[in-house]
Amino acid sequence: MSTPNIHGIIGYTVTPFSAHGEGLDLEALGRSIDRMIDAGVHAIAPLGSTGEGAYLSDAEWEQVSEFSIHHVARRVPTIVSVSDLTTAKAIRRARFAEAQGADVVMVLPASYWKLGEAEILAHYQAIGDSIGVPIMLYNNPATSGIDMSVELILKIFHSVENVTLVKESTGDIQRMHKLQLLGEGQVPFYNGCNPLALEAFAAGARGWCTAAANLIPQLNLDLYQAMRDNDLERARTLFYRQLPLLEFILKGGLPATVKAGLELTGLAAGEPRRPVFPLAQAGRQQLQGLLHQLA
Amino acid sequence: MSTPNIHGIIGYTVTPFSAHGEGLDLEALGRSIDRMIDAGVHAIAPLGSTGEGAYLSDAEWEQVSEFSIHHVARRVPTIVSVSDLTTAKAIRRARFAEAQGADVVMVLPASYWKLGEAEILAHYQAIGDSIGVPIMLYNNPATSGIDMSVELILKIFHSVENVTLVKESTGDIQRMHKLQLLGEGQVPFYNGCNPLALEAFAAGARGWCTAAANLIPQLNLDLYQAMRDNDLERARTLFYRQLPLLEFILKGGLPATVKAGLELTGLAAGEPRRPVFPLAQAGRQQLQGLLHQLA
Amino acid sequence: MSTPNIHGIIGYTVTPFSAHGEGLDLEALGRSIDRMIDAGVHAIAPLGSTGEGAYLSDAEWEQVSEFSIHHVARRVPTIVSVSDLTTAKAIRRARFAEAQGADVVMVLPASYWKLGEAEILAHYQAIGDSIGVPIMLYNNPATSGIDMSVELILKIFHSVENVTLVKESTGDIQRMHKLQLLGEGQVPFYNGCNPLALEAFAAGARGWCTAAANLIPQLNLDLYQAMRDNDLERARTLFYRQLPLLEFILKGGLPATVKAGLELTGLAAGEPRRPVFPLAQAGRQQLQGLLHQLA
Amino acid sequence: MSTPNIHGIIGYTVTPFSAHGEGLDLEALGRSIDRMIDAGVHAIAPLGSTGEGAYLSDAEWEQVSEFSIHHVARRVPTIVSVSDLTTAKAIRRARFAEAQGADVVMVLPASYWKLGEAEILAHYQAIGDSIGVPIMLYNNPATSGIDMSVELILKIFHSVENVTLVKESTGDIQRMHKLQLLGEGQVPFYNGCNPLALEAFAAGARGWCTAAANLIPQLNLDLYQAMRDNDLERARTLFYRQLPLLEFILKGGLPATVKAGLELTGLAAGEPRRPVFPLAQAGRQQLQGLLHQLA
Repeated sequence: MSTPNIHGIIGYTVTPFSAHGEGLDLEALGRSIDRMIDAGVHAIAPLGSTGEGAYLSDAEWEQVSEFSIHHVARRVPTIVSVSDLTTAKAIRRARFAEAQGADVVMVLPASYWKLGEAEILAHYQAIGDSIGVPIMLYNNPATSGIDMSVELILKIFHSVENVTLVKESTGDIQRMHKLQLLGEGQVPFYNGCNPLALEAFAAGARGWCTAAANLIPQLNLDLYQAMRDNDLERARTLFYRQLPLLEFILKGGLPATVKAGLELTGLAAGEPRRPVFPLAQAGRQQLQGLLHQLA
Repeated sequence: MSTPNIHGIIGYTVTPFSAHGEGLDLEALGRSIDRMIDAGVHAIAPLGSTGEGAYLSDAEWEQVSEFSIHHVARRVPTIVSVSDLTTAKAIRRARFAEAQGADVVMVLPASYWKLGEAEILAHYQAIGDSIGVPIMLYNNPATSGIDMSVELILKIFHSVENVTLVKESTGDIQRMHKLQLLGEGQVPFYNGCNPLALEAFAAGARGWCTAAANLIPQLNLDLYQAMRDNDLERARTLFYRQLPLLEFILKGGLPATVKAGLELTGLAAGEPRRPVFPLAQAGRQQLQGLLHQLA
Repeated sequence: MSTPNIHGIIGYTVTPFSAHGEGLDLEALGRSIDRMIDAGVHAIAPLGSTGEGAYLSDAEWEQVSEFSIHHVARRVPTIVSVSDLTTAKAIRRARFAEAQGADVVMVLPASYWKLGEAEILAHYQAIGDSIGVPIMLYNNPATSGIDMSVELILKIFHSVENVTLVKESTGDIQRMHKLQLLGEGQVPFYNGCNPLALEAFAAGARGWCTAAANLIPQLNLDLYQAMRDNDLERARTLFYRQLPLLEFILKGGLPATVKAGLELTGLAAGEPRRPVFPLAQAGRQQLQGLLHQLA
Repeated sequence: MSTPNIHGIIGYTVTPFSAHGEGLDLEALGRSIDRMIDAGVHAIAPLGSTGEGAYLSDAEWEQVSEFSIHHVARRVPTIVSVSDLTTAKAIRRARFAEAQGADVVMVLPASYWKLGEAEILAHYQAIGDSIGVPIMLYNNPATSGIDMSVELILKIFHSVENVTLVKESTGDIQRMHKLQLLGEGQVPFYNGCNPLALEAFAAGARGWCTAAANLIPQLNLDLYQAMRDNDLERARTLFYRQLPLLEFILKGGLPATVKAGLELTGLAAGEPRRPVFPLAQAGRQQLQGLLHQLA
């Protein structure tokens, strides 16, 4: 099994709904994917946190997964989040995504009952044994309730053959340092925390998984390019320029803020699914102002 | 709408599976319900955290809900957990439980994307508007990722007519003090933290929601009775006697430990659903020892 | 070495200053001690957190220590806090207090650089080896920055002969449960968290160390007596009655609120030492209201 | 009042003691200062956390302060920590340091009783009003127990004329982002968290306050120079090379590890003051190995 060269800006998709967060709007999803690919993002990641994957019915999840993969149509790699609370359903989703043509699947170990390290390892092992595509291990305690230590991540990385990529979203740069040092520079890691974009690249991250690519893809790409060019001063300027927007969309909840931003930039994507509220009027005005400054 | 007099020991059910956490074993569920009711518990609460409600498919959830309510058959009140990540599905479940005859539904606001106070209130309001039975509001940040302040709980209690009962599981006794003081003694609160059983009753809790009633119902009931009898010394002795078991089942994860305990006491209930592991051999021996001391 | 029978209500003294938190006002200190002893408290504890011991010069500390011990004059036991950042100074203070006639010394391991368990144990051992009176080990991470586990506390209790009393101020009732269970009922523990007074007694605490005894000694004593009489209902009523005041003085900072309360009840004790502010006017009015309700 | 141009590597001194952490060894202190200045550090910072300032008697503090300032003799700027629990003593120390010739004083607001924002501001204001040299405001919740928000830091920066420099040691890079954005690029900030050295410079920190300059000054200086040269790749390589040592000295407690490292490199500086232990034998061997790799 070979891992595609995943790097650079990895754009998360939202899942557009019709009225009040109900029925899917796949046509809008297609346009949002095209917009990011046309702007130059290096990969597309559907059904992640931003994509409200956890809020979909099983049937909806399959529809969005199939549509996204086919719509990307290998213009760039597709990384599909297949996380679920049970191992059995995560396996079903991983197999489905692979069958539809996903290049990579992303797995966040979800928690209701706290999981021990052996349970988390077995979860990854069982998924890995069921598919033939690479797994991007995803650590995000804020949404999942589980914080995998670097030692555990490395244990899984070395034990489960398919786990070849690591996405770190704790927001603590020391985790990336530790992945680099303990992983002896052999573990490709990706940043999932928007306000850490500059420092994660400084620390050696290969890519930045971000929903901001729906709104300001060029600034995201320019920051990545400046770091590749070893031009820290330019990167710092670019980073501080986009940071207020990065913080805004994170703080307001990505589905609500990114959907509002898409609408403000001409791509109606509906509202998040309840109980999550759409962005309120004051927030929309603030977002409009931030987008205007960056336009 | 009148609220049934919920008090005393409220026994959580497990959800027995057949092999490896697969298919439902409703016959075992029925026996576990009978065991608790025969022992004298004051209410039965299916599909809570202990019941692995979050790990069931929609069809399974309905089967367990329907079976449990019909099997209890009004011998004691039934309190069905109907929590879900989306408001829409929580409403569907609440309506289903009501239609089957549930006396009360329990609602824990689940979190993937963090919810603001208005979102949580609207979630309860929407569920409340959809049903005619009382709601037990449930606060448990350790499993849900949301910690409702006492002020928010009281706001919901006063805004949503059906919310007439509050279950507090932070493990912080000060929350109960605050419910009592700010609620001016008018808010019936229940304890969901096993190692806080003695102090919660001391602080005025009307009941104790516990999975321990599957294993040591008499000790649970005796503690409640001693507190009703204003006999603190007896209550303290009873509490310290059962505390090691209460801590053991909590620390090991309730589905794994309670299912092991049921099996050790002659009622095979299968394993938890993966990725959660069944209790390991060393833990089973420790549990056997604890149960033996209390027999 | 025999440990005096320390139990019941242990009243902390403030350290009255003259203007702006400067010079000592020992005459006011004497009156505050008399007031508590006359009301019936079971022990006096000078130079604790409430007593601003950490804010005094070495000379002032000795003056207050000597004066307090001599003024109590064995009417009740005196428990003097001798805590310091360095082991050497804590020893000097412990010896001084013993020489002046202290019945017990209290030791909180202070932290600037985090201490390991061996360092904390050695600190207690060195102090214990230097004196002939009992030590009350004091755990209060909120002020000291060190949280001693129950296991460590028991290790010290069993290793250092003089450590015969434990004061727990984390506010987590589970620590007391653990002291009771792991200590096999042989470790006398005391509560230092005001809003936990009811539950700490329920869990078996022998005493309550409280600055509230400066303001509402009778209510404190009545609560203790109700628990001794095994009358939980009366204790609960007494507890909820005084709880708003207990929370107020804790939340506002004990030196500021207790000094304001002393002044409001006719015993001017000056202001806390800067940078701590005296209680602002709004707080004084609130405190006046609370005291009025309890009078 | 003009602020000297503080930038680059700011070396903390230890405070060498003779046997068992007793009497001062000023001769060793002088040699450690010379070593750092000869290596090229840009400023010297005595009596900080590493310097065990909090563990000294008042007389010792004055001796070390006077000696350090005179020994540096304006070869580079001297930044003296004058922090104390009381405002009065912090003022005395600040005046003393200024009188001896300190270029800057550093102030960490210490906490026993929690301080509100107005109290912290007044503390800085009172110190600022008492001296004519600049203040480096220092935020380090891990040692001080107080975490100043960026908003509060900026309020103090804009209210107290002498506060012209900010040292941030939370280890959270987002604080520096916020200082840069909300401070509109006008607030000179310095990093006090060793494992954040690379990213703090990436985010725009003007300097790095570090005790590592006692052991590996050239690597510290090279990292700073690479960042000034806009050569991120070289900086990253230099950072990862020294990171294991940076983490080791932080994790083991700076006074213990840096004193051990000084001795291993030929400059005996004694032991830390009790209750802090000297570095144990296993740690010394590990440190020796780390230093050997970097030599």
